[in-house]
Amino acid sequence: MTAQIIFYDIASTKPLTTWSGNTWKTRYALNYKGIPYKTVWVDYSEIELRSKEVGASPTRKKPDGSPNWTLPMIHDLSTGAVVADSTKIAAYLDATYPDTPRLLPPGTLGLFRGFEAAVLSLLNGTLYQYIIPGSCKLLQPSGQAALRRKREAMFGKRMEDVTPRGEDDVIEWKKVKDVFGTMDDWIKMNGEGNAFMMGDTPCYIDLWMAAYGQWVKQTVPEKWEDMKLWHGGRWAMLLRNFEKYETVL
Amino acid sequence: MTAQIIFYDIASTKPLTTWSGNTWKTRYALNYKGIPYKTVWVDYSEIELRSKEVGASPTRKKPDGSPNWTLPMIHDLSTGAVVADSTKIAAYLDATYPDTPRLLPPGTLGLFRGFEAAVLSLLNGTLYQYIIPGSCKLLQPSGQAALRRKREAMFGKRMEDVTPRGEDDVIEWKKVKDVFGTMDDWIKMNGEGNAFMMGDTPCYIDLWMAAYGQWVKQTVPEKWEDMKLWHGGRWAMLLRNFEKYETVL
Repeated sequence: MTAQIIFYDIASTKPLTTWSGNTWKTRYALNYKGIPYKTVWVDYSEIELRSKEVGASPTRKKPDGSPNWTLPMIHDLSTGAVVADSTKIAAYLDATYPDTPRLLPPGTLGLFRGFEAAVLSLLNGTLYQYIIPGSCKLLQPSGQAALRRKREAMFGKRMEDVTPRGEDDVIEWKKVKDVFGTMDDWIKMNGEGNAFMMGDTPCYIDLWMAAYGQWVKQTVPEKWEDMKLWHGGRWAMLLRNFEKYETVL
Repeated sequence: MTAQIIFYDIASTKPLTTWSGNTWKTRYALNYKGIPYKTVWVDYSEIELRSKEVGASPTRKKPDGSPNWTLPMIHDLSTGAVVADSTKIAAYLDATYPDTPRLLPPGTLGLFRGFEAAVLSLLNGTLYQYIIPGSCKLLQPSGQAALRRKREAMFGKRMEDVTPRGEDDVIEWKKVKDVFGTMDDWIKMNGEGNAFMMGDTPCYIDLWMAAYGQWVKQTVPEKWEDMKLWHGGRWAMLLRNFEKYETVL
């Protein structure tokens, strides 16, 4: 099959490498569904420009209330649809390609949005201290400057001072572990030995969680070495289970 | 059938009336499943005492780290199990009574826990300003004193000063509306005209949301008059749909 979907991912100094957890969610989803696509790599400084060119709607608001465009974004050439925001993309793919493996079981989309909101609010003040500076280091100078502008305003400090050091690192990294511990508890609620959030079969929620493992692995590999050992090796196992969906088309 | 489950609810000055949203979750669940039970009304000041008597584990921690016992709690005489925490009770009832209507579809328990965490974190600083003082007014003097001790420490002000007035009320009540607006959005994500979170059929998530409507209706009836009109009448409709599960056994 020829590619019918253009998938916009964020470029870095490493060719053909997805580093952002958010674009990992979509890469995993496209590969899981086996839909042919072609990746277009966008410099971090050009996300807004390219999104407007393709005709995407803003996905968020900036702290000052102005519109914010983010990746991932897909342009489906077969329908003309342009969709940004990883969960909207997942819902779009399920609705438009019903003959491919389903990402979210029928009826669970609203429930998943709540789940997502809960986890993001927990990760925001904790994991982001590690993965955002780690991501910054991987970008080209133009992308670095753009990411600094956006994120230093949010953190209220220079990028170099965001990641906790020494004693602070011990405390803050433990908080990150506790967030993943909460997700580990939620997985076990359906059955102690379950590998996935909804039982024996993976779905988008598992790909979504694995995307955060990838974000750590790609941007703070020394922390990934620790994280691999957490919760009986759950997160290492999750990434291993999804190795077949890492393809970059 | 004779009652095999003792359901511990919180007493008030109104006989046979459930006012707490948290115990509404369990009352709705028991009636929805059609499991015979008998309500035992516990004074708010005696929750810890009665819970220990029955042998319940603490469900939470107090701000000072000491254990906290809460209602709802059930004592299932047929199995000997004592379960506290509304979601644990729902999971227990689904597992123990598989021939009754299911509260949470298979595999959705962990996902629901995330949903619950997200909504609670949004309701905590907003809706609670209204329903906690409203609840306090319904209690017997002994219960009022106990609720004050616990909640005034959490709010950092006297119960009489918790509910916003005048301009503050307009701002804060709008925040409450926005939280319910978020849930309304999530419901519509699975289908614009859906009455329930997972589609056409209600499940525990809908009973759980309705329980917050009940909490408003019982403790701040003047606010319920406004809330009934929100989001195309969604919350009024939800309570009407569940009227048949309001029975007090």
